[in-house]
Amino acid sequence: MEVFDQIIFIIESIGTVTFAVSGALVAMERRLDLFGTFVLAATTAVGGGIVRDIILGQTPPKVFQTPYYLTLALAAAGVMILVAVLRGRWRGPRAKINFSALMTVCDALGLGIFAVLGANTAVTAGFGDNIFLMTFVGVLTGSGGGILRDLLADRTPVVLQTDIYAVAAIIGTLFYSYLRRTIHESAAMLLAAGLIVAVRLVSVRLRWRLPVVSLSRREEP
Amino acid sequence: MEVFDQIIFIIESIGTVTFAVSGALVAMERRLDLFGTFVLAATTAVGGGIVRDIILGQTPPKVFQTPYYLTLALAAAGVMILVAVLRGRWRGPRAKINFSALMTVCDALGLGIFAVLGANTAVTAGFGDNIFLMTFVGVLTGSGGGILRDLLADRTPVVLQTDIYAVAAIIGTLFYSYLRRTIHESAAMLLAAGLIVAVRLVSVRLRWRLPVVSLSRREEP
Amino acid sequence: MEVFDQIIFIIESIGTVTFAVSGALVAMERRLDLFGTFVLAATTAVGGGIVRDIILGQTPPKVFQTPYYLTLALAAAGVMILVAVLRGRWRGPRAKINFSALMTVCDALGLGIFAVLGANTAVTAGFGDNIFLMTFVGVLTGSGGGILRDLLADRTPVVLQTDIYAVAAIIGTLFYSYLRRTIHESAAMLLAAGLIVAVRLVSVRLRWRLPVVSLSRREEP
Repeated sequence: MEVFDQIIFIIESIGTVTFAVSGALVAMERRLDLFGTFVLAATTAVGGGIVRDIILGQTPPKVFQTPYYLTLALAAAGVMILVAVLRGRWRGPRAKINFSALMTVCDALGLGIFAVLGANTAVTAGFGDNIFLMTFVGVLTGSGGGILRDLLADRTPVVLQTDIYAVAAIIGTLFYSYLRRTIHESAAMLLAAGLIVAVRLVSVRLRWRLPVVSLSRREEP
Repeated sequence: MEVFDQIIFIIESIGTVTFAVSGALVAMERRLDLFGTFVLAATTAVGGGIVRDIILGQTPPKVFQTPYYLTLALAAAGVMILVAVLRGRWRGPRAKINFSALMTVCDALGLGIFAVLGANTAVTAGFGDNIFLMTFVGVLTGSGGGILRDLLADRTPVVLQTDIYAVAAIIGTLFYSYLRRTIHESAAMLLAAGLIVAVRLVSVRLRWRLPVVSLSRREEP
Repeated sequence: MEVFDQIIFIIESIGTVTFAVSGALVAMERRLDLFGTFVLAATTAVGGGIVRDIILGQTPPKVFQTPYYLTLALAAAGVMILVAVLRGRWRGPRAKINFSALMTVCDALGLGIFAVLGANTAVTAGFGDNIFLMTFVGVLTGSGGGILRDLLADRTPVVLQTDIYAVAAIIGTLFYSYLRRTIHESAAMLLAAGLIVAVRLVSVRLRWRLPVVSLSRREEP
């Protein structure tokens, strides 16, 4: 139990940092100010979990009860801001980091980790037999922070446009709901999260895209 | 009671399908991908009810407890996608359907049905004497899904611009709060929902518009 | 206790009116219709408190239990609409009111009042020792209505762009969490709210701005 809790804790920490970085990157791209950068980082990192807890009726949400995760997200945003500021002055090889690729990887890690954690929260709350609800809550936890981030950044949520994203979370959450009946919970979570990350990154690399269906060829009014 | 529950069930099913179609149509107009189309359909169909349940403290929201309504919404979205795909290949009379008119009618049906159901939920939760709260929850249930749909589609909610929409829900909910004291609950709900649909469609047909008040003639910065 | 409740009541009323006016002004600037103007006024006035109550698990939110605050917000919006309509016909000195300045002052008053009230709600809910949570809930209560207003108006929330806004609320809420241990609760609330208003208005007047950090000079795709 001790080891299991520690693994959960480490996974959540990694997910929090990666989502916070993703949020800070979007904020900088949108040229928000320092405060907006911290807010988008925090929202992306803990927003999905807040929505999950509100929907499951577990209030106040966990993130408000322990300042650790929000502090971690804010610290990650602070580091990103420092990196961005220092980067302009440093003409070394790191200046050529592809931030688009970095953002994609961070996003995929956060998606996998939070989707499985969300599904696990549904299990803990007593809904382990309802695969439908587990999948829904998992996907919501994984992509809810990103959706809130995009709403605050005044753009259509990436998850509704960038193809195999939530679909990866759906696949991984279903895999987790199967695995957790056969192997140890923590191993099931790690494997399922890994599957989500893999599906997401492979789909980006191979440019898999879900088709867009349009009703008409008229321009939108 | 059996008949009453069945009527509620049928009304909710009709409302779910019509709102899901409305959401799918917006998603296709905005050229979201297949997943985005399903999400907007589901959000429009069950989003108002989720917000209502969260505000009334009834968690997890009803829609997460029975997969029926979400499944129905997703199925309706699937059918709309099939229709849209097949439509390009079929040169028959149906190709001339006016989708704008179809969307307006679907939206009006969903508005009427969900507004009255939302008000009825407030009654069931013990707020039957608070006409103010009943009206508010009713309008929120009726238009909340559409507002979430428009936020996700990155546009100003139609309900804040398209005139006699929420106002129709207000009129119908007030009518329901009066009717339910004099005739049978289900009859009151059907009549009130019908009034909302009628007010909405007549206002669209006759181009009734609420005035826009502007503070100044300067362009916005 | 009687006096304390009355002071809370008066503060909340002032905050409700000022936020409602702020919301109505944004709605008119965005050329929403009459209903949209009332909705944005109400959302700005009571939205922060609704989000706070949902997060603290106090449902239904207080604003739905007593129609007073919503009625007050709608009445304030009605007055603003009347003023806007009459203003076009009246060529007197009042026609030269600077509405931008009016909006800034209204917003600052609402921010200060609601941030402190939100922090106080966290105290009442038993989280008086958790300064982190108090600050978070306070800032959320103060700026949540404005964020919802901006989301509905389809624009990036002003709070993420306009510098010393939420930061003023953070400073004031921290000040309140210190003050309330040394002087009377209501005096602490008034002083802290006053500090927030002062910091906000001075920062606007002196054009203090938080820096914007950008990752690259490439145009966003």
